[in-house]
Amino acid sequence: MQNFEFVNPTKILFGKGMISKLGKEIKSHSVSKVLLHYGKTSIFKNGVYEQVVETLKANQIKWVELGGVKPNPVLSKVEEGIEICKKEKVDGVLAVGGGSVIDSAKAIAAGVLFEGNIWDAFDDKKRATKGLPIFTVLTLSATASEMNAFAVITKEDENKKWAFSAGYDSYPKVSVIDPSVQMTLPQEQTVNGAVDAISHIFELYFDGTKHTDIQDEIAEGIIRTVMKHVKILLNDPLNYESRAQLAWSATLALNGLNAAGRTWGDWSTHTLEHSLSAYYDIAHGAGLSIMFPAWMKYVYKNDIQKFTRFGRNIFHLEGKDEVVAVESINKIKEFFDEIGSPTSLKQVDINEDAIEKLTENASLRAPVGVLMKLGRDDIRKIFYLALN
Amino acid sequence: MQNFEFVNPTKILFGKGMISKLGKEIKSHSVSKVLLHYGKTSIFKNGVYEQVVETLKANQIKWVELGGVKPNPVLSKVEEGIEICKKEKVDGVLAVGGGSVIDSAKAIAAGVLFEGNIWDAFDDKKRATKGLPIFTVLTLSATASEMNAFAVITKEDENKKWAFSAGYDSYPKVSVIDPSVQMTLPQEQTVNGAVDAISHIFELYFDGTKHTDIQDEIAEGIIRTVMKHVKILLNDPLNYESRAQLAWSATLALNGLNAAGRTWGDWSTHTLEHSLSAYYDIAHGAGLSIMFPAWMKYVYKNDIQKFTRFGRNIFHLEGKDEVVAVESINKIKEFFDEIGSPTSLKQVDINEDAIEKLTENASLRAPVGVLMKLGRDDIRKIFYLALN
Repeated sequence: MQNFEFVNPTKILFGKGMISKLGKEIKSHSVSKVLLHYGKTSIFKNGVYEQVVETLKANQIKWVELGGVKPNPVLSKVEEGIEICKKEKVDGVLAVGGGSVIDSAKAIAAGVLFEGNIWDAFDDKKRATKGLPIFTVLTLSATASEMNAFAVITKEDENKKWAFSAGYDSYPKVSVIDPSVQMTLPQEQTVNGAVDAISHIFELYFDGTKHTDIQDEIAEGIIRTVMKHVKILLNDPLNYESRAQLAWSATLALNGLNAAGRTWGDWSTHTLEHSLSAYYDIAHGAGLSIMFPAWMKYVYKNDIQKFTRFGRNIFHLEGKDEVVAVESINKIKEFFDEIGSPTSLKQVDINEDAIEKLTENASLRAPVGVLMKLGRDDIRKIFYLALN
Repeated sequence: MQNFEFVNPTKILFGKGMISKLGKEIKSHSVSKVLLHYGKTSIFKNGVYEQVVETLKANQIKWVELGGVKPNPVLSKVEEGIEICKKEKVDGVLAVGGGSVIDSAKAIAAGVLFEGNIWDAFDDKKRATKGLPIFTVLTLSATASEMNAFAVITKEDENKKWAFSAGYDSYPKVSVIDPSVQMTLPQEQTVNGAVDAISHIFELYFDGTKHTDIQDEIAEGIIRTVMKHVKILLNDPLNYESRAQLAWSATLALNGLNAAGRTWGDWSTHTLEHSLSAYYDIAHGAGLSIMFPAWMKYVYKNDIQKFTRFGRNIFHLEGKDEVVAVESINKIKEFFDEIGSPTSLKQVDINEDAIEKLTENASLRAPVGVLMKLGRDDIRKIFYLALN
């Protein structure tokens, strides 16, 4: 096990009706006016907006609104949010939505207190170290952004989809996870969320760290739980208990618990996927189910023991180590197929012509990865493996 | 899954050499003088005291010492600590030891700011809601007190061994877990710690809550990891990786993670054990390995499904549900026997004569328990089941 420092100060309010408790929590942090940040129209349809406004009003918290956050949230919207916060003198940011909205809120919260353009913190030119207090109401379980300190934003004019953190202040103070508001999600979004959660575990689980029994046990438990309950939800989207299992599993997948004691993850597949979704209008989860089997095929020989363990404990495979390792990759691809998430670039109409552009983009910060350090040639080969 | 609120603000510094980072952390909390609280002589033998003093000095933190905390820590020592803190104007408490020392430190930290005697907070007469900042250096993994907000103290003159919490302030601000300092522990203490950790999982796992897949996966992962690594340590006590696995598993067993989404646990077996160790000089872990199989035999019919799952996922048992459920109880008793933890009252020289006294003590707050509400008669029967 690696030495580690672990802290996660986010308070979670989980369950039916918990949005009503948020206003009091915001007030207890001495916040009196928030930027209410959201995406498109879904929060007006599923009753979440009304519940949020009600708890704000009940606690005399003022707000100013900024909607329109897109999946793969963009820097221009972040800049707009920062502008509004400064002008309107808000002292907190309330994200109501999925990971995209929360990530956008994190960048805004840090940007308000940042000297210069907040993109400099993504670009590693200057560290962001503080931010306005952040609160969230989660409407799509996937990224775990509701309980971690990271945000991924796309700089549209340069097709860069990069991550940043302002440290401790980037953890939401309080996040509400009410699984019942996810019952009306389009099936595709539920699936994307499940793939995203599993992918976070993969990045951590397959990072090559040795002596990680307890971490691996928890990782495998999350994978099995997500796989089981996303399948139930395909046939029974109103199943509250499965929504709850999927939601809490997705949060635990990337709240730091699974990283503690590891080398903090491989993350090269996320880099490759970010290049995909920086160029194409493709959901993050869909990009991950395309890229992970390809990455696995390319790197599994660097840790046959772990891929064998994966095959045995997730798919109950039996046989010789390398056979089980290879078969486990086929099995996870089959699972993605089964839940309707794409597993090849061609399925999303991206063909060979795109590979040089994608390779170029994903190589901007190469070498990437921990289990195998990937250079430009490796990255190109993995995109080729992902074609079919 | 039950609705829940979850927050755990404790920062963990885990691994070899991490004690050296503690002084800076204490300083960052604006603490300038601590009560350095410890047990007997072990921290002077294993080098922990020196490491602690060094990091305090390096960060200009003053201290005053109070040693002599016993296993099953007592109120009189807590009162002594409170007195010293007030007289010496300390602004933080640093516990260096196992769960007993940390629990004693928590009661002291709250007691300094409590009007009246701190036992009133154990007795439910008055709530404790604040305390001095607490820091810990863990030397024996068992109770998870290093990452939760609870403390158990014994009021000697009344043989009451009860728990309390001052809420958020009872979470240690920072806890150091360096598994290497546990390499020199007597085997018995390693075993007691493992049993304690497993028992915490049992209290949560067997509380009858339904729809707890992800919680159960994590619980079973912790049980398997503790069982595996405590056995390795019996033969190879200097195995750092197994010390690390046991240490982090014990912390995760009772840091709130396993309680979230459940009914917060059954805890009747702990009540029964507390009566045992309030009267007899018996380690908490030893008392738990005696009481748990007895409690399980008495209550398993209230949740055959969970006991069956336990048997299948922990001991790979096959067959009909009730057969597996019953056999799982025999198996856990066998495991306790195997690692040398007692499984009957007679093994620790407690016989039938003691049962009325123990029943009386454990019934003070009856009914206890969640899976089955236990009254005085139930408690007596369970003590009888524990005799042999």
